Amino acid sequence: MSEMIFGRNTIVESIKQNRKIEKVYTISNNKDIISLSEKYGIAYEIVNKDFINSKVTGNHQGVLAYVKEYEYFKLNDIVSDKEDSLIVMLDCFEDPHNLGAVIRTGETAGVDGIIIPKRRAAGVNSTVTKVAAGAVEHMNIARVNNINEAIRYLKENDVWVCGTDIDTNKYHYNQDLTGSIAIVIGSEGFGMSKLVKENCDFLVKIPMKGKITSLNASVSAGIVVYEAVRQRNINK
Amino acid sequence: MSEMIFGRNTIVESIKQNRKIEKVYTISNNKDIISLSEKYGIAYEIVNKDFINSKVTGNHQGVLAYVKEYEYFKLNDIVSDKEDSLIVMLDCFEDPHNLGAVIRTGETAGVDGIIIPKRRAAGVNSTVTKVAAGAVEHMNIARVNNINEAIRYLKENDVWVCGTDIDTNKYHYNQDLTGSIAIVIGSEGFGMSKLVKENCDFLVKIPMKGKITSLNASVSAGIVVYEAVRQRNINK
Repeated sequence: MSEMIFGRNTIVESIKQNRKIEKVYTISNNKDIISLSEKYGIAYEIVNKDFINSKVTGNHQGVLAYVKEYEYFKLNDIVSDKEDSLIVMLDCFEDPHNLGAVIRTGETAGVDGIIIPKRRAAGVNSTVTKVAAGAVEHMNIARVNNINEAIRYLKENDVWVCGTDIDTNKYHYNQDLTGSIAIVIGSEGFGMSKLVKENCDFLVKIPMKGKITSLNASVSAGIVVYEAVRQRNINK
Repeated sequence: MSEMIFGRNTIVESIKQNRKIEKVYTISNNKDIISLSEKYGIAYEIVNKDFINSKVTGNHQGVLAYVKEYEYFKLNDIVSDKEDSLIVMLDCFEDPHNLGAVIRTGETAGVDGIIIPKRRAAGVNSTVTKVAAGAVEHMNIARVNNINEAIRYLKENDVWVCGTDIDTNKYHYNQDLTGSIAIVIGSEGFGMSKLVKENCDFLVKIPMKGKITSLNASVSAGIVVYEAVRQRNINK
């Protein structure tokens, strides 16, 4: 199966990371993409903007490509015997924009991997790849049948599982987030499921000082993940 | 001038906050919106989904409303003589989704106001209002002619201006963000303009540990704003 991706940054990153690109379709203005395709020996075709408009509804910047679908990692590719693993687990993001933004944040934060569920959740598609701005190519993403079994596996491998939920008194910055930790972020509408919440080793919440009671899910992920980064680097 | 807004949360919040709503159009399923409109004495009309589809391309959940356009605050409504003001300034967000997400984050973080430029930047429109999930109604947003003049005004009023840029060695968590501070976040594509950067009192950067060199602008804002919240509350 092949997948369509689009946008200049996405395609440049995909080429540079040796993603298996079947063919690039670009307008003649994208000189850098043409020369990069030639350099990497990738089939390309110069087309007019109408051709691309007919295939893509998003902001394509005059270029699209067909690539092999994202190959997910296995859970044991992500869980290592490092003593300071940082893993992100999403239960269950439905919005591909949020998934893409979390992948981008995870890559810049240096997380070891992202775990997503197979069902009732966004997978890595062209929108996710675009929003992640090239980060998909650098991130180990595992898709699991069952988030609760994945949590058990993490615990068995000495990874602490930290849920994010309003149902706790502990603010994220008052929790020790060093050591090997997986941070679980709930879905946009409903947060984490009840069982996932129960299976977490501990819960943290982000302080909410106004009248609105929830943050955008990818912003929440950024705040908690970077608090873990802060704690791991503050004395370095 | 009136503006169209849509989506259940957005409209419920707008009604509850006494925003000047001219008329609500809803499908009959949205019982809560109908009873809320009756309770608040707002004109409403039951329509079918096709009517709403013909007006809105986004996820409208069967309801739209026409409201008076957002009335911006003035800069001096936001700058007070508080000793711990927290202000966010955006230079220049073009994407209404990012602006909406920052307004939502600012509201939950308890910021005193958001400053945006009048030109070449997204203003508060229906997409922003929807993405902000009701937060627009609770946030003081000032739109200024000139960001650099606004920075001068902030400085004259004893507000420190903290820019975010990769061109510094200081990580955001190593900078004192207590006291009265305005955090400036640059645009999605280009960051802060050169002059804005020069006018900031100091710069901070978010650590980037991977190969991607930038975060989503609204995620960046969330990380730095909540670091300021952490510092202000850590001993409370």
